[in-house]
Amino acid sequence: MVFQAVNDIHYFVAYARTAQSVHQIDQAFVFRHVLCLFTPLLQTSRNPPRASNMNFCSHCGAPVRVEVPSGDNRPRHVCPGCGTIHYHNPKMVVGCIPEWEDKILLCRRAIEPKYGLWTLPAGFMENGETTAEGAARETLEETGARVEILNLYSMISLPDINQVYLVFRAKLLHLDFVPGEESLEAALFSEADIPWDDLAFRTIHRTLMHYYADRKTGQYPMHMGEIFHKPRPPQS
Amino acid sequence: MVFQAVNDIHYFVAYARTAQSVHQIDQAFVFRHVLCLFTPLLQTSRNPPRASNMNFCSHCGAPVRVEVPSGDNRPRHVCPGCGTIHYHNPKMVVGCIPEWEDKILLCRRAIEPKYGLWTLPAGFMENGETTAEGAARETLEETGARVEILNLYSMISLPDINQVYLVFRAKLLHLDFVPGEESLEAALFSEADIPWDDLAFRTIHRTLMHYYADRKTGQYPMHMGEIFHKPRPPQS
Repeated sequence: MVFQAVNDIHYFVAYARTAQSVHQIDQAFVFRHVLCLFTPLLQTSRNPPRASNMNFCSHCGAPVRVEVPSGDNRPRHVCPGCGTIHYHNPKMVVGCIPEWEDKILLCRRAIEPKYGLWTLPAGFMENGETTAEGAARETLEETGARVEILNLYSMISLPDINQVYLVFRAKLLHLDFVPGEESLEAALFSEADIPWDDLAFRTIHRTLMHYYADRKTGQYPMHMGEIFHKPRPPQS
Repeated sequence: MVFQAVNDIHYFVAYARTAQSVHQIDQAFVFRHVLCLFTPLLQTSRNPPRASNMNFCSHCGAPVRVEVPSGDNRPRHVCPGCGTIHYHNPKMVVGCIPEWEDKILLCRRAIEPKYGLWTLPAGFMENGETTAEGAARETLEETGARVEILNLYSMISLPDINQVYLVFRAKLLHLDFVPGEESLEAALFSEADIPWDDLAFRTIHRTLMHYYADRKTGQYPMHMGEIFHKPRPPQS
């Protein structure tokens, strides 16, 4: 932090020296860099900040307020300065079941949460990709394996943590997979060897339960469901 | 804007008067409210701000930088002050095809984009709901109609605008629908009357093309696809 402050002062002085006169110094530029020095004063939590932990407008930097905007029906983070309404929406987790003969490819997590537990290759969908591209990219990153994405097999909403899991069936294209940076190992499992007690997530457990039930029939319809982390109020 | 600045000065003065001594005035509080007054200096665009147009850390208010974080492989908005990495991910648009005998319910948009054109009831999925709940809520908001959500029918990725459309088949539960605030009208259409040239979005056009083709067979498998808005580089 001290290094950062010194760095910012140097950056500002260097910028100011390039100006022919004081009038050429852009006020907004100066303000932004001076702001850096005050950053520690503004931190309100010892916990690592989360994206939904919004205190300031990401567009203009003013403090936001939580209010119901005109014509809306739920509270949003609204900037009283520039008027931006900040919407927060669920994220998609995209992954696949890479199949090789009667086996599937799992990976063991090298990161939190659920360090050391097994999962299907999956991760947050990125901007600029399709759902299938995201699932293939996550598989490549976590296991080194290339796959051909087949049909959507499982869509599970997790409304209490604002996620939707989309898991595809996929054809594993080669066997020389290697664990990526976020995986301790990657390995093929037959049904009898699935580490049911060491699976990382309920979404993966449920998806694999469907998968092995469907395999008995040879039909793989899409499964839709939800997993709750908190009690829900009774539906009207 | 002037009103806002005056309002913030009043708010600050009122706050300062409640303090027993100057030492009780919280520096971070003062800084945040003084910041409001400078907001216009920080605005860098005449266009309405968008959420992805990130200039400042939403957690601590410091200017963000675009860089590839350690262990990552793509540029992110990173805060040099508090260390927050801001991820931007695609949003889901959830909607349905409300069916009543051989007709479906469409609504005509009362808002931009595509004011005046027809669409299936659909909108951005909100935090705290499942995909099916979101589709039913959007239908209620836009047409006043309650539906029973059936199966997922269409999933279309729009990677160039960072959206994924999820459209369900649904059973319309009553006929006393009324357009909501975002709709000019809501009406039932038979296949012959679908306003193909006045549909608002390509996603809706494609979904309805699938729907009427499938209706001839009585089978409604899930359709997965993508719509691009820019040329794509050749795939390796």
